[in-house]
Amino acid sequence: MDKAIRNDIYEQAVKWVLEAGTIIRDEMNAPLSIETKSNPNDLVTVLDKRIEAYFVQKIKEKYSNHFIIGEEGYGDSVTSLDGTVWIIDPIDGTMNFVHQKRNFAISVGIYQDGIGEIGIIYDVMSDILYHAKRGEGAYKNEQELPQLKSNVKLTNAIIGMNHFWLCENRLVDEKTMQEFVRKVRGTRTYGSAALEFAYTAEGIEDGYLSLRLSPWDVAAGIVIVNEVGGVTTDIAGNEVNMLEKSSILACNPILKDDLIAFIQSGRK
Amino acid sequence: MDKAIRNDIYEQAVKWVLEAGTIIRDEMNAPLSIETKSNPNDLVTVLDKRIEAYFVQKIKEKYSNHFIIGEEGYGDSVTSLDGTVWIIDPIDGTMNFVHQKRNFAISVGIYQDGIGEIGIIYDVMSDILYHAKRGEGAYKNEQELPQLKSNVKLTNAIIGMNHFWLCENRLVDEKTMQEFVRKVRGTRTYGSAALEFAYTAEGIEDGYLSLRLSPWDVAAGIVIVNEVGGVTTDIAGNEVNMLEKSSILACNPILKDDLIAFIQSGRK
Repeated sequence: MDKAIRNDIYEQAVKWVLEAGTIIRDEMNAPLSIETKSNPNDLVTVLDKRIEAYFVQKIKEKYSNHFIIGEEGYGDSVTSLDGTVWIIDPIDGTMNFVHQKRNFAISVGIYQDGIGEIGIIYDVMSDILYHAKRGEGAYKNEQELPQLKSNVKLTNAIIGMNHFWLCENRLVDEKTMQEFVRKVRGTRTYGSAALEFAYTAEGIEDGYLSLRLSPWDVAAGIVIVNEVGGVTTDIAGNEVNMLEKSSILACNPILKDDLIAFIQSGRK
Repeated sequence: MDKAIRNDIYEQAVKWVLEAGTIIRDEMNAPLSIETKSNPNDLVTVLDKRIEAYFVQKIKEKYSNHFIIGEEGYGDSVTSLDGTVWIIDPIDGTMNFVHQKRNFAISVGIYQDGIGEIGIIYDVMSDILYHAKRGEGAYKNEQELPQLKSNVKLTNAIIGMNHFWLCENRLVDEKTMQEFVRKVRGTRTYGSAALEFAYTAEGIEDGYLSLRLSPWDVAAGIVIVNEVGGVTTDIAGNEVNMLEKSSILACNPILKDDLIAFIQSGRK
């Protein structure tokens, strides 16, 4: 992607993300209309839809030839990553949004012919913007994030993961995951995949894994984590396919082989 | 405890906690001397000891007849809760301190003849002070925290707990805990018991449980959670003994019976 074009898109995207953040903060004290999607764990709010619609309108107005993949379905029916594709989660961490009124993020990844060019994760209530352009480093607000540290190993790593993978499930042997919890130094669960990517990029987690996420959960985070030297693959070490649900591993590159070997030994 | 005396102690304690916070923030960029206690998961830093020693010196100077229970062992050998007892964790969440440089807290509980009179939890890097006096409400900085909401049930609750209890362990059947994870709406792990008490008092978690904590992990949090109408017991529903390690449950009172019944069914 041409750098001047990319810069323009980046500046526009950041502006829209910050504006969307303002909309959300302004609405936070208004009563929320909450409806459930497939189950009570998958909440989505009216605001979630409104923010996605806001992005879709802005993007279509300004960049009529761009494509949009969004969690709420206001985007396009995208079957290929050709061209410029915005991959948007208007509110990542909806359960945190509803229950905590903080610890959620707007996540916007912009891909050109399948390559992640721009990643933006905005912790709305803390007003912290994680952002990156491919090849130009990752930033937390104005501050460039350093490259991930080189003295990490599995036994002194802090890993972000959901408790669910320690329970019987269709994707991974829970006993393997329980061994994994005992192996690493510590585990954390923050309830927002986008924020856990951001935390991995900051190095406050050494890795984050999930057995099943959607493209909008990870698209921005992948760009940001890559820019600090982190690796982002599916749990088998393959490139993540941005057109379908996938497992995900984002981590310090030193941990990659050990992490993949450990989890793969329990894959179903 | 006489209210005037308690107010004096409270104001002094808050002042010392904030001063200790300043010491910690000033030192955050200095290299840390990290030593391990019983295992690599149990880190403690030089600063941890320094902060406890600071509290002990201040308390002994001002209140020579008070007793001190502290994680680092600079306090007294307390075998009774008679009199005024300060129960101090100078840095709760040492793993977060070391790995994240945030998300840790100073925790100070002050008990009179076994009754929690004052609770102070200070999120040092966020500069957020949770504080309560028995019978006078709980506060987050200057803002009084509302009473816990009344429309909670287990299936829409967010519960804080460590992943460790989903692995085979000596205290609770891991299968029961795995069922528990599937039963509740969501689970979180933040890596600081004190902060999870504070979050429970705020209502951003509906409960927090651990099968094994020390008095300094919970002493302040118990006072704060009680002041918003929360309950704090051991996992069997009994009063927590401040002189020994214990299981702990802090939660919305509506959840208490269901939570205890669930976990007790798996106790070993």
